[in-house]
Amino acid sequence: MAGTDLKKVEPSRPGPAVVLVRPQMGENIGAAARAMKNFQLGELRLVAPRDGWPNERAYAMSSRADDILDAATVYDDTAAAVADLQLVYATTARRRDMEKPGMAPRQAAEEIAGRVAAGQRTGILFGGERAGLDNDDVVFARSLIHIPTNPGYASLNLGQAVLLLSYEYFLAVPATPQPDATAAPPATAGEQQIFFGRLEAELDRSGFLKPPEKRLSMVRNIRNLFQRAELTEQELRTLHGILSALIRRD
Amino acid sequence: MAGTDLKKVEPSRPGPAVVLVRPQMGENIGAAARAMKNFQLGELRLVAPRDGWPNERAYAMSSRADDILDAATVYDDTAAAVADLQLVYATTARRRDMEKPGMAPRQAAEEIAGRVAAGQRTGILFGGERAGLDNDDVVFARSLIHIPTNPGYASLNLGQAVLLLSYEYFLAVPATPQPDATAAPPATAGEQQIFFGRLEAELDRSGFLKPPEKRLSMVRNIRNLFQRAELTEQELRTLHGILSALIRRD
Repeated sequence: MAGTDLKKVEPSRPGPAVVLVRPQMGENIGAAARAMKNFQLGELRLVAPRDGWPNERAYAMSSRADDILDAATVYDDTAAAVADLQLVYATTARRRDMEKPGMAPRQAAEEIAGRVAAGQRTGILFGGERAGLDNDDVVFARSLIHIPTNPGYASLNLGQAVLLLSYEYFLAVPATPQPDATAAPPATAGEQQIFFGRLEAELDRSGFLKPPEKRLSMVRNIRNLFQRAELTEQELRTLHGILSALIRRD
Repeated sequence: MAGTDLKKVEPSRPGPAVVLVRPQMGENIGAAARAMKNFQLGELRLVAPRDGWPNERAYAMSSRADDILDAATVYDDTAAAVADLQLVYATTARRRDMEKPGMAPRQAAEEIAGRVAAGQRTGILFGGERAGLDNDDVVFARSLIHIPTNPGYASLNLGQAVLLLSYEYFLAVPATPQPDATAAPPATAGEQQIFFGRLEAELDRSGFLKPPEKRLSMVRNIRNLFQRAELTEQELRTLHGILSALIRRD
């Protein structure tokens, strides 16, 4: 993992607060913090965590995402946790009696990214392991987020739900594409032509490109096959070497 | 959860095989099976699981995804696990020296959905917890899948990586493009291995693959170059013919 270890862990970016409502297991709070850190979210809010706060088991699970746990804020109820937020979403696998629009994670992430870019404070509610969100929590949300899954097998746990939403948000924020400086230079069309000419001359000499009326389509097929590989300069040199090695044999 | 319990658990749909390469902890195999079931994937393949198979801890973690574990197939090495597959992907957080295209999970999922709709057999390789995939595994893949994360904090575990890819595949399926019935069938990994073996034997005989300490990386580079072309069965026959023609000369 040397390649990734050399890279700097990026600080969190502006994004939605992740609000865990009555979470039970510290392990799942730690897993949520890791998922957030993976995708550069930083703001964790806890509503009435069952085992109090701070929680050793959360830290044991959080693996270098301690900074997110250290900065987590704790609230007695959902109303207090969302009081300063301008737009709240609630994740749920359940159909509810309430008339609220439901949306997919991707759609929600794009909407949230737009609101965050406009300077708004947003948050996503996630229910606890056993009972999920109740109607008194959901009432704060403008929209429900339904994570699409196999009907009847919605066994996503808290950490996984946070992971999927954080991932979608990470992708929804317009990224600055990194130039790939390490990519090997592709061979030019001219360089490829030289190789093809050489290969075909050898195949003519060996009698492979017969009968004559099929020669053109055979040559085309061979060229296509190599074209599709988008050869680098180095690979083209390798192919020249292979050709030389093969014809040198007796 | 009454609302969801009334719904029927849907059977798995056609999709990529999930290939876990040298997985260590049974818990993570179970988590992978759950993630697959959440998103209606059914075909799990295990390459040399550290603790043997079946594994109690995998079942303890799998929560009603036992059917996927029951049907899992076990292989000694990656070559055997992918032999019948026509298109193989490898997930990795690492940048590699190998010349292979990298793509995002979403892009890969859409591509796989198209191939599956066309009746092709596809698979995704996931590396074990400690060491990930090594170059000898990755050589079977046409493309690398890079899961985008916070640089320097790519702490996704095996179950999470399977979750994200399964989720993306689940979403990609409805948007599947029409299968291209006229496309030529791609060669299987096993068929390609036969050609590579033959080519390398000839190159050994001709002294091309020297010095010995460079042989492995030379072989890898040559294989990668051909993998990228996504050879059809017909093209593979052509390459066999070319090889025969070239070595026949004097």
